[in-house]
Amino acid sequence: MKVAILGAGAMGSALAVPLVDRGHEIRLWGTKYDIRILDGIVKGETHPRIGVNIPKVVKIYYPKDLPKAMEGIDAVILGVSSAGVAPVSEQIKDILNRNTPILIVAKGLEEVEGEILTMTQIVEKVIGGSDRIVYISGPSIAKELAHKFPTAVVYNSKNLKLAENIKREFETAYYRISVSDDVIGAELCASLKNVYAIAIGWFDGFAKKRNGLEMNNAKSAFFVQAVEEMACIVERMGGRRETVYGLSGIGDLLVTARGGRNGMFGMFIGMGFSVPEALEEMKKRGVGVVEGYVAAEMAYKLIDGKFNRDELPLFYSIYEVLYEGLEVSTAVGRVLDSLSKLG
Amino acid sequence: MKVAILGAGAMGSALAVPLVDRGHEIRLWGTKYDIRILDGIVKGETHPRIGVNIPKVVKIYYPKDLPKAMEGIDAVILGVSSAGVAPVSEQIKDILNRNTPILIVAKGLEEVEGEILTMTQIVEKVIGGSDRIVYISGPSIAKELAHKFPTAVVYNSKNLKLAENIKREFETAYYRISVSDDVIGAELCASLKNVYAIAIGWFDGFAKKRNGLEMNNAKSAFFVQAVEEMACIVERMGGRRETVYGLSGIGDLLVTARGGRNGMFGMFIGMGFSVPEALEEMKKRGVGVVEGYVAAEMAYKLIDGKFNRDELPLFYSIYEVLYEGLEVSTAVGRVLDSLSKLG
Repeated sequence: MKVAILGAGAMGSALAVPLVDRGHEIRLWGTKYDIRILDGIVKGETHPRIGVNIPKVVKIYYPKDLPKAMEGIDAVILGVSSAGVAPVSEQIKDILNRNTPILIVAKGLEEVEGEILTMTQIVEKVIGGSDRIVYISGPSIAKELAHKFPTAVVYNSKNLKLAENIKREFETAYYRISVSDDVIGAELCASLKNVYAIAIGWFDGFAKKRNGLEMNNAKSAFFVQAVEEMACIVERMGGRRETVYGLSGIGDLLVTARGGRNGMFGMFIGMGFSVPEALEEMKKRGVGVVEGYVAAEMAYKLIDGKFNRDELPLFYSIYEVLYEGLEVSTAVGRVLDSLSKLG
Repeated sequence: MKVAILGAGAMGSALAVPLVDRGHEIRLWGTKYDIRILDGIVKGETHPRIGVNIPKVVKIYYPKDLPKAMEGIDAVILGVSSAGVAPVSEQIKDILNRNTPILIVAKGLEEVEGEILTMTQIVEKVIGGSDRIVYISGPSIAKELAHKFPTAVVYNSKNLKLAENIKREFETAYYRISVSDDVIGAELCASLKNVYAIAIGWFDGFAKKRNGLEMNNAKSAFFVQAVEEMACIVERMGGRRETVYGLSGIGDLLVTARGGRNGMFGMFIGMGFSVPEALEEMKKRGVGVVEGYVAAEMAYKLIDGKFNRDELPLFYSIYEVLYEGLEVSTAVGRVLDSLSKLG
């Protein structure tokens, strides 16, 4: 197959590795934000985000060469940031063949004309055709995939047959693919996990402030509460609880909470930084956008009114800490109260 | 309440902390294996396993003083090792009041007269009366509880009213208790998590052998597979899937897999040590019994014949690595094959 990967960041670039191993012709196109990365790849340098060299057979395309990158392709992968999905969809909608499958690895919720949309909903709105869309979810740190470490993901599509066909084309010994038709469940998990990872990070902050002994019991209890709330949200929004208990939910939350930016942001808050101070600390470390911080607001807008606040004590506690000045210690106490009721 | 805690190891001793905070009269009795610990407590030293001083109001009892420790008590907590549950139950059965509640924090499966039994089944068999038994489960590292870090556990009993009554007596701001009647589900989780933590540890061994980059994607995928298999086992054995998705299952597996002995044992195997060599390495580090190693055999005896091996690819892979000489790399490949089918 000829496959265009749009976005030369970590995940888009990492996907080139298994696809090249399967013998596909890969075109890697970068946005204006990727130009330095593209220059590096062209010079034969290691990709700065994933620590490997992109295979030499991958053809590199600069921003202006999008039409050329798309010529005669059999599938396109949207590997841009969540904010980039709408504009890039606009850019490709007229040059994309009507039936070409669109795979999406971007994660998040975006506000489009006052409406909160998932990634696939944006693509459906701009380009159309949910039958051609496959949403990729699951625990997949790009750097590990690029190193060919075992990685198991889910290809989600309303068109299960399409997902199965692409799985057969893309799967390798280290890149394992299962399929599901619960697209909304997978997408909600992918956004919400970033929100919940913030709260799990709080305890690393508390531990730092105290004697440094880890607070694994509390982190674990909050993880369980996060899973329970994600299942509640996904079910009410039309997805399936089983999705939350699988790779897309528990699996992705696990790699996210184990490290990463959202947890670090939560840690700063747990250490006593205000939200603006914590965001500032993240900027100093080169993180311009904390995904979970943005996702909390988007998810709030998406679900508010559909749930009783008591049903989602952890979600609303996080939201109130981030946006309404709630003290983090008060938030923790409130969640602990809810835990002593759980069966 | 007057409460006797039997076993002065990590968990028994840690439980004294919240119970003293609730104003209960606590007697801490040690077995012959606990004598050095008891001597230390009496001298006012820090408890070596949990890093805190046992509150001075706790009364300390040496092995021979068991009858005195049990005099007039309102509840007894079995905090001995899983192997100690049967003999200690024998010791107390004639001095225990007929209605005194028995709480169990010991975890595991034991072979008694050719039968594989859970902890509560042993107590029921030796002492009798499932209505008075409460089994404590959930993510609870003793040292963290002893430091009064937030900890959420589950009190499981066929007698829900008893569990609720004891919850009301024992709960503190940092020791949160929920109740459930799924005793068998909680007990199976508590044993199986030690088995599955071994396989999650394999990847730390692989990572050490290679460039040191962590294999979080794979660990996460195996974690999800473990949860799926635990749910399958628990359901078939008469428990509920929900128990696995809660504190007793996911929650406890999480703290176990994050660190601890079973994971370390698995790591040595992943590094290329044979099973006897890995057990030897553990001994050098002062770990005489690797719980998950024993639990794998017990669980195998308990469930074999009740499942198709295809239903539990990870469990049987672990068992075969530990007891039948299966290569760990072959085991991983087999589990990955099963992951590419999961929905």
